[in-house]
Amino acid sequence: MPRPQRRARGRERRDRDPGIRTLPWQSVENPFPPLEPLSADQVEAIHEASMDLLENHGIEVMGDAALDSFARAGAMVDRGSGVVRLDRGLVAEAIAKAPSRFTLTPREPAHALELGGNRIHFGLVSGAPNLHDRINGRRAGNLQDYIRLVSLGQCFPCIHFLGSQPAPPIELPANSRHLDIARANLVHTDRIFHAIGIGAGRVADAVEMVARARGMSAEDLENDPSVITNLNINSPRKLDEAMAEGLMESARRNQATIVTPFTLMGAMTPVTLAAALTQQNAEALLGLTLVQLTRPGAPMVYGGFTSNVDMKTGAPAFGTPENAKANLAGGQLARRYGLPYRTSDCNAANTVDAQATWETMMALWGAVMGHGNLIYHGAGWLEGGLVASFEKLVVDAEILQHIISFLKPIDTSPAEIATEAIAAVAPGGHFFGTEHTMARYETAFYAPFLSDWRTQENWREDGAKTATERATGVWQRLLAEYEPPPMDPGRLEAIDAYVAKRKETLGTEEP
Amino acid sequence: MPRPQRRARGRERRDRDPGIRTLPWQSVENPFPPLEPLSADQVEAIHEASMDLLENHGIEVMGDAALDSFARAGAMVDRGSGVVRLDRGLVAEAIAKAPSRFTLTPREPAHALELGGNRIHFGLVSGAPNLHDRINGRRAGNLQDYIRLVSLGQCFPCIHFLGSQPAPPIELPANSRHLDIARANLVHTDRIFHAIGIGAGRVADAVEMVARARGMSAEDLENDPSVITNLNINSPRKLDEAMAEGLMESARRNQATIVTPFTLMGAMTPVTLAAALTQQNAEALLGLTLVQLTRPGAPMVYGGFTSNVDMKTGAPAFGTPENAKANLAGGQLARRYGLPYRTSDCNAANTVDAQATWETMMALWGAVMGHGNLIYHGAGWLEGGLVASFEKLVVDAEILQHIISFLKPIDTSPAEIATEAIAAVAPGGHFFGTEHTMARYETAFYAPFLSDWRTQENWREDGAKTATERATGVWQRLLAEYEPPPMDPGRLEAIDAYVAKRKETLGTEEP
Repeated sequence: MPRPQRRARGRERRDRDPGIRTLPWQSVENPFPPLEPLSADQVEAIHEASMDLLENHGIEVMGDAALDSFARAGAMVDRGSGVVRLDRGLVAEAIAKAPSRFTLTPREPAHALELGGNRIHFGLVSGAPNLHDRINGRRAGNLQDYIRLVSLGQCFPCIHFLGSQPAPPIELPANSRHLDIARANLVHTDRIFHAIGIGAGRVADAVEMVARARGMSAEDLENDPSVITNLNINSPRKLDEAMAEGLMESARRNQATIVTPFTLMGAMTPVTLAAALTQQNAEALLGLTLVQLTRPGAPMVYGGFTSNVDMKTGAPAFGTPENAKANLAGGQLARRYGLPYRTSDCNAANTVDAQATWETMMALWGAVMGHGNLIYHGAGWLEGGLVASFEKLVVDAEILQHIISFLKPIDTSPAEIATEAIAAVAPGGHFFGTEHTMARYETAFYAPFLSDWRTQENWREDGAKTATERATGVWQRLLAEYEPPPMDPGRLEAIDAYVAKRKETLGTEEP
Repeated sequence: MPRPQRRARGRERRDRDPGIRTLPWQSVENPFPPLEPLSADQVEAIHEASMDLLENHGIEVMGDAALDSFARAGAMVDRGSGVVRLDRGLVAEAIAKAPSRFTLTPREPAHALELGGNRIHFGLVSGAPNLHDRINGRRAGNLQDYIRLVSLGQCFPCIHFLGSQPAPPIELPANSRHLDIARANLVHTDRIFHAIGIGAGRVADAVEMVARARGMSAEDLENDPSVITNLNINSPRKLDEAMAEGLMESARRNQATIVTPFTLMGAMTPVTLAAALTQQNAEALLGLTLVQLTRPGAPMVYGGFTSNVDMKTGAPAFGTPENAKANLAGGQLARRYGLPYRTSDCNAANTVDAQATWETMMALWGAVMGHGNLIYHGAGWLEGGLVASFEKLVVDAEILQHIISFLKPIDTSPAEIATEAIAAVAPGGHFFGTEHTMARYETAFYAPFLSDWRTQENWREDGAKTATERATGVWQRLLAEYEPPPMDPGRLEAIDAYVAKRKETLGTEEP
């Protein structure tokens, strides 16, 4: 195999510093059909088994409000154990009321998300109790770092939405921390973000605050939703009371409600993928049924979070072959019910190395080719979710930009096929200076911001930095240059007044 | 999002050291339909444009034997310029004679490759002038390291074949080096390997040597091929004489001949993917036509190696979004002609870091989902091909094992769906000790050999090693424990006698 000559440095253009080359905000569509590891019969087998589970074994639901709602709808509710059993007809009727596509609009309307079909959206890490970067090391979540983390997310238009409390500031009081989080999200980003689904109050507060940021009333938001709330099923087969309350409040407000069973195979489900998908499906559909019982027609999303544990230690694993397949199969189940699909892109590495990257890419391909409409943890997740990493966020943004560019269709118009341009160069020549090249070379290829394609010698002279080490320089520069997206002062005032009033009502509580 | 508890160390099993967990040798089938970025009309547009190129502009072919062959077949041959123009009917008629599937058998018949359809095979790096590992640093190719490199490849059954001279031993005389290479391949591995396609003699020597290793005559090998020869087109539009000679000898011997244009967009082709694919297609089909003109029905493979250069520096780039799409589209073109497909999985990183991994994974997903039957450079390629890296080889083997596991279908039989096993665990419980789990846990999930899923604390106590650093320990152990696959002493004697006689004939020449 002949190898091309690396060109000398003299060829490098001496343009003024272009900064970090982020792709512009864009709606991402996957032009490929979804990859489907299950046949139609297999999807039906999993559906049938999950209906069997719901009808004959049921799921424990905590809290009277949810139990009452199920009972009113005709479900079999055992008040002693809290176990709810659902007839498949009831489930099918409820689920059918949900829209298959809907739009979520943040304070910047240009950054609205259209959920459904082949629209892919990537999210910032959720719920990491710690942060890490190569300069400041590993530390517990705190408000200052929270603001830096979401600001860094804002710098990358390929990150379409924020995860649920990306790295919660745990020094703040637990009962009002969500107000500080929502304020930081609203001030430092203009993207869709999450309400924290622990109880009804936190969901209501997020809705009220976004409404103020948009200059609308909370009632108006019911016709023009802005907020995502993700509720986890406490797998196996348990819906906690606070989650049920959060779910119902999100539905009542007609905001986007996601139900995601937390199904790590081997721990929270059997070790087989078929069983895990069956259990995931039963658990998700129970929660999604409750959404529709609360408010028929409310927008909702089918969530999947099926991966496996390391059977030698019980440690969670992500980006495994099983996780990638589950991400694909979950999309088939969501489409079975005509619902948008939330999946994830995680890894279980301890540092931003080759393992972190191959696990991320395994999970990500499954998520993208499974037509995940919301891909959680797409930027910044490390250590199985125990850490939000600044360097990982930068590496992930580069990977997401690769994927977005990959998904762009190939243009085969005559000017692109360009037979005459091919023929114009003599055999054995080159195309560097041709007219066809000169007219297109600046935009012909995706230009990564983090890749280093210099010669070994030049790379060594410049410190032999790994991509992870280079990522440090990227986030430092982005945060140094970062400016929050402008917000109308009156709206900010209304947000702050709301936060102050709510904090007074809630009182203080130890963090 | 709740997080599972990491389990304490006490849970780790105290079994005897299982060694490096490599997957057994296996035939890999991709159960998914190929991903196709081009519509049927777009494939035809590229086909038509490439036919136009062949008919009206032609390709320069060097050497009288090849020109004579084209002239005899009725091609338009300009003896002055060496430009050959081919009628589309001539091309179609020739290509149609090739088999769409065939088998290549190495000295170990269990490691035969069946090329065609959805069978995926991964190859060791080809043609790197240097080697690198973290212990011995970067050095030029040499025989001792060559043997260690192919021995390491032999340790991983997920590496189905050797690339063409993985890292040539440049201290040996250039005119007989191929004999030492073939001997090392035959003694230290039992996989399919490549003849070096520079001239007819090297191809003939590889065939003669494999025949001896298999205990067959070279004539017998014509009915039971063993050898791959990959010929590059010197893009744009030039087939060098030595390559043409190697191609014709491979065809005469009825061995597998691959024609791969070397089409780096922006340098050797226009910057547009449509033009690059058009040029690749014209160039590949010219070479493949010559294969069939030399021996109708000879087995052959459509090769694609389309990536882009960095337009700021001219440096080659791999694993780019454009490269991944080209890997997919190349498969569509190969299938258009009913031919097996060779593609690649490369990267342009300087070290085994996140960049090396994301580029590898981008190219690899394109290659696998494009139904590449032979995926070159699948293990060990670094620095855009300037280095064969031991650590990269180990990381790549782990990635290939992930992909192989990912491609296994999901079993949805009743024992796998296991509704009763789900129901047997109470809501909020866990599945660690259940009968269903205990019966399956050892084989339920793919068990990686290189991933580290320990807690941050345990990982730090053990030296906080990156995956690349851990890979050093893996290759050291594998090479320490490596034993060459057994070979009949009489066959080895026959190989050595052949090499000695040929070296005498060829004489010595400065390396």
